[in-house]
Amino acid sequence: MKLCQFGDPNREKPGLIDGQGRLRDLSALRDAITADDLSPAGLAALAAIDPDSLPLVPGTPRLGVPYRGISKLVCIGLNYSDHAAETGLPIPSEPIIFLKSTTAICGPDDDTIQPRHSTKLDWEVELAVVIGSEARYVSEDRALDHVAGYCVMNDVSERAFQMQSSQWDKGKGCDSFAPIGPWLVTADEVPDPQSLDMWLDVNGRRMQSGNTRTMIFGVATLVSYCSAYMTLRPGDVIATGTPPGVGMGMKPEPVWLKPGDEVALGIEGLGQQRQRVVAWPG
Amino acid sequence: MKLCQFGDPNREKPGLIDGQGRLRDLSALRDAITADDLSPAGLAALAAIDPDSLPLVPGTPRLGVPYRGISKLVCIGLNYSDHAAETGLPIPSEPIIFLKSTTAICGPDDDTIQPRHSTKLDWEVELAVVIGSEARYVSEDRALDHVAGYCVMNDVSERAFQMQSSQWDKGKGCDSFAPIGPWLVTADEVPDPQSLDMWLDVNGRRMQSGNTRTMIFGVATLVSYCSAYMTLRPGDVIATGTPPGVGMGMKPEPVWLKPGDEVALGIEGLGQQRQRVVAWPG
Repeated sequence: MKLCQFGDPNREKPGLIDGQGRLRDLSALRDAITADDLSPAGLAALAAIDPDSLPLVPGTPRLGVPYRGISKLVCIGLNYSDHAAETGLPIPSEPIIFLKSTTAICGPDDDTIQPRHSTKLDWEVELAVVIGSEARYVSEDRALDHVAGYCVMNDVSERAFQMQSSQWDKGKGCDSFAPIGPWLVTADEVPDPQSLDMWLDVNGRRMQSGNTRTMIFGVATLVSYCSAYMTLRPGDVIATGTPPGVGMGMKPEPVWLKPGDEVALGIEGLGQQRQRVVAWPG
Repeated sequence: MKLCQFGDPNREKPGLIDGQGRLRDLSALRDAITADDLSPAGLAALAAIDPDSLPLVPGTPRLGVPYRGISKLVCIGLNYSDHAAETGLPIPSEPIIFLKSTTAICGPDDDTIQPRHSTKLDWEVELAVVIGSEARYVSEDRALDHVAGYCVMNDVSERAFQMQSSQWDKGKGCDSFAPIGPWLVTADEVPDPQSLDMWLDVNGRRMQSGNTRTMIFGVATLVSYCSAYMTLRPGDVIATGTPPGVGMGMKPEPVWLKPGDEVALGIEGLGQQRQRVVAWPG
């Protein structure tokens, strides 16, 4: 299944994508896609709905975050061997965990708002793992049982803010820095999360091009690892790191986003996003 | 006002502390103390209630987090000049922001659960600032208008986890690592947040003893600063750092918490907490 929410911000309706790729309206049956819907029982109930019985949504409405109820957004730093090489940093011996502010979360095609005083705005296409059932000290071999599905995410980063102190969170959590979507693709449609092509373009030029197979720590390892340090709740997201090609790593000079730029990104089978960069108003 | 919630976990009722320090039951008037109640209008509505009209709560029930709806827990590292000196680290030129997982939040007297493989469990008494109205690019001179009140918090930390990578969040966000309460004390009862004595005892021995006047960046500066990097929502918390006396800084050897230890802490006018350390079961 491909689950989504559509409509104006904070007024989204639930929807799903049918076999022909068309958006269907679920709002007669659900107020929203919630974290409860992501449990095995919740997903089974949604899967029992015949998409053809749902009204088609006319036009091309805005897409929001695909579901409600992300209590935390856990991120993994430097998790692609080829990206670690690009940054010149050693390959981590354990996953590097940091957190992104939940106020950074927005719809997949919402504008990326450049904060005031930002000088080094950057991009990172990432596979986002969505937790479906509570996970605490889960083993690697059971970890994927706790995954409801996957989304595309852009881990938008302000490198000057990020590097101003030892702690990255300040440069990772600004409003609009975590577009998620277009859909939540349920895990049954992603047979191998470690073989997905991923890409990101800036103004039509390919900047990132990678595959989840070069992750240093794979999805099952990350779910298990994170669950040893904090309880993962249904709806929580683990953003699993980015492949090479971020602006910070460009040669001969870094490349930073500026108002007017357009970023497009996608992951095989999970859809694509498109953001326009705008300045913070005023 | 001193607002609180009491009762079993996830079934707390709202309450307030009357002029004689007795717990009164607000549940006939409210389902909970919510983030909406923390707005100026929400607090005014609560202030209009005569505490003597509310039933006294018998016995000494468990206290929960004083209100519902903490979407993020923003923390400031090394924010006391005397604590920075203790750690041997330079005084920061700007606030160091990191985030604590919201699943770490618990009631003020709930057990501190030592995670598996923890070897360096530590304490940090902190002044927690509770946001009452949305704050985004607020100036320092208007910043306190956005503060609903203050709480005691213990920024429980696992130093081995914290220092395993460059990013601290992993050692700060384990379940039970953020006891908040006993009460939310509204800002009108805290005329100067920069002159509050604070203390922390382990097994009856005074370990931390400080005053919010040695903060490097004061509350107004922190609210303004954080609001330039992320929207602060009603209910969000800024934990403002800890004074000297953490276990990591003890001489001649660091002191770490172990199961059976008892930690008590408090801040002038904001009440006190008491936690027992227990091992993760199994």
